[in-house]
Amino acid sequence: MTPHFAARMARVTPNAIGELLALGADPSIISFGGGYPDPTLFPVAALEAVFSEVIRAPGGLAMQYAPSDGLPRLREQVADLMQRDGTPCRAEEVLILQGSQQGLDFAARMLVDPGDVIVTEDPTFLGARIAFDTARPRYAAIPVDADGMRMDRLEEVLTTTPKVRMIYTIPEFQNPTGVTLSLARRQRLIDLANRHDVVVLEDSPYRQIRFAGNPLPSLKSLDTQGRVIHLGSFSKVLVPGLRVGWALAAAPYLDKLKLLKTAADTQTSTLNMAATSLFLDRHDLDAHIADLRHAYGRKKEVMLDAIRRHFPQDVTVTDPEGGLFTWATFPEGFDATVFMRDVALPRARVAYVPGGSFFPVDPRPNHARFNYSAQPEDRIVAGIAALGDALKRHA
Amino acid sequence: MTPHFAARMARVTPNAIGELLALGADPSIISFGGGYPDPTLFPVAALEAVFSEVIRAPGGLAMQYAPSDGLPRLREQVADLMQRDGTPCRAEEVLILQGSQQGLDFAARMLVDPGDVIVTEDPTFLGARIAFDTARPRYAAIPVDADGMRMDRLEEVLTTTPKVRMIYTIPEFQNPTGVTLSLARRQRLIDLANRHDVVVLEDSPYRQIRFAGNPLPSLKSLDTQGRVIHLGSFSKVLVPGLRVGWALAAAPYLDKLKLLKTAADTQTSTLNMAATSLFLDRHDLDAHIADLRHAYGRKKEVMLDAIRRHFPQDVTVTDPEGGLFTWATFPEGFDATVFMRDVALPRARVAYVPGGSFFPVDPRPNHARFNYSAQPEDRIVAGIAALGDALKRHA
Repeated sequence: MTPHFAARMARVTPNAIGELLALGADPSIISFGGGYPDPTLFPVAALEAVFSEVIRAPGGLAMQYAPSDGLPRLREQVADLMQRDGTPCRAEEVLILQGSQQGLDFAARMLVDPGDVIVTEDPTFLGARIAFDTARPRYAAIPVDADGMRMDRLEEVLTTTPKVRMIYTIPEFQNPTGVTLSLARRQRLIDLANRHDVVVLEDSPYRQIRFAGNPLPSLKSLDTQGRVIHLGSFSKVLVPGLRVGWALAAAPYLDKLKLLKTAADTQTSTLNMAATSLFLDRHDLDAHIADLRHAYGRKKEVMLDAIRRHFPQDVTVTDPEGGLFTWATFPEGFDATVFMRDVALPRARVAYVPGGSFFPVDPRPNHARFNYSAQPEDRIVAGIAALGDALKRHA
Repeated sequence: MTPHFAARMARVTPNAIGELLALGADPSIISFGGGYPDPTLFPVAALEAVFSEVIRAPGGLAMQYAPSDGLPRLREQVADLMQRDGTPCRAEEVLILQGSQQGLDFAARMLVDPGDVIVTEDPTFLGARIAFDTARPRYAAIPVDADGMRMDRLEEVLTTTPKVRMIYTIPEFQNPTGVTLSLARRQRLIDLANRHDVVVLEDSPYRQIRFAGNPLPSLKSLDTQGRVIHLGSFSKVLVPGLRVGWALAAAPYLDKLKLLKTAADTQTSTLNMAATSLFLDRHDLDAHIADLRHAYGRKKEVMLDAIRRHFPQDVTVTDPEGGLFTWATFPEGFDATVFMRDVALPRARVAYVPGGSFFPVDPRPNHARFNYSAQPEDRIVAGIAALGDALKRHA
């Protein structure tokens, strides 16, 4: 038979992420590709204990169906986390998600008709684009510099572009660049969104992993009109394998997001919600995050030191204040995809993510994203040295 | 601000399921509403052991990110389960889902443009309609009798209706009616689907819970053209709180479903996939299912006996050979929603699901769905007696 697919599938096509995740699994390759947290920092004993306790709890409640919007206790705990982080939040405004990725899919489905415009950073998170593409948007991509998305260019786009439905941003330690949106630009972004009546989708999976500089207010905390939808996640601060994230949104949006949740998968795993909730009750998440900050800050230094020592002088990298990634800029004419295929993988036995796929409109080949959280420090040094050597010989 | 929603949200509106699940949580109400399995049958010790083992496994792999299509070992095990059930299946044809509900959402997104037609049973599973509605289909609803969907009516619809993209069916112990599609009709359904070049979405969450009659071949096992997409689930045979289900589909469909999975939520919980996989390795799922069959078969008898004793003679119910539900037909003029609101809940303290919402085109008010799996036997008898009493006094 000849499959007949819906029109929305036109842009649902294979991409680089799957293959790259697969490469990361080959232990003979040193992979700086995936956004994997460091598994040696997983709170193994604590997780074992909380899973055991929730499975044994009377009535089997943690194994049964649960409300689509999430376990009430966990929604309260998320509201409390947000409040302590300076963002006003009530439990009723929280929807538990299957990772914050699900919030990207839901936001686009809720807000975007085919041909409507989504504003993103340029470059932006590939996973977001993969989610958004099923809603068939057009993209307006705004350049970033060391202070994040450029507000002069955002204003220009909002002023000249009809049907902008959503501004998508990762304000802290952006994926892929590692840069952070400055306070002045946060205020300006909210001001522009208000003026042009656009929803802001604030994606904050890395926010808690700040190892340098001062915390900045979330966009949601600056929002006076209920137009910021904030996405958070336990993937980076606890473990990704739980697939527990959340959305914080004003009632009109949260109501629709809840309905999409019921339609999409009924609910997030009761077991994983209950275990996350009990972890927050029984253990000190802040202390665990402090350990992560220390370790990732150190690894970032190790990677940047190695890059300074081993890479050619004409390669520049960003110096993130948190998160998992640094972003490399190679000289004009360098193609990071070709180099990875022909040299980095087969000769240096090193993987990264070539930068082209992060640009939603106009791919630029001379960039790459490097993750420093996943590999142990000795492999970071060995991988960067091997890659630097290869760059000097073959680039 | 005034929210602007995408057109696809027009039919994403509140429904009865959420409120009914909430009612089921009030312990003073005897609820026959939700499709909850019996929590006293959950394999608590086995699940505690497998979670403990996967959390402690070296390298933290069960807590890390995993491939979007699912853990390879679990895909193999699902293929093996399908094979042993008589359905040809290779691991590469299996996609692990966040419950089979996710497969309903993905199938509609993949196949259905606004205005295209989905054929369903009449009545059909409300959760499917909630998922399908985001694709904005029209519905053609085919009456069911004791042998399932009526093939004469299906043929009529397929012959006269353009743009039918999908025939959605629950062949075993259908939700909500409890009826099973006969072998002759299965063959006829495949024949009609082939003739009219339509995809069949076979939703089989209850298939393993057969306590009477003889097993029938799955539609997928009768499919010679790769046009059946089969959905399965561990929710009813293990625990719903895991949220682990699967799709089995031929390559052109599976490839697109995988891409939708990456877009929608990256992956199903690694922990839950790893624990399910280890459960299948270490424990005897067939023996556990045999216990479920025995218990649910008994509970079905208890409920039907109580109904025969306590309900007015003009109320009829189906006698399912498996699954979780029986379907009541009240006399013409009876409104099961009004009766639940005014009498069953406030006076009899009993909940069921009024049947109207299960009809996608033309709601009929004189039906109700009763679940017999969730409540202990004494509460089944007490609840049915109280409801029968109320029916005799107030109907």
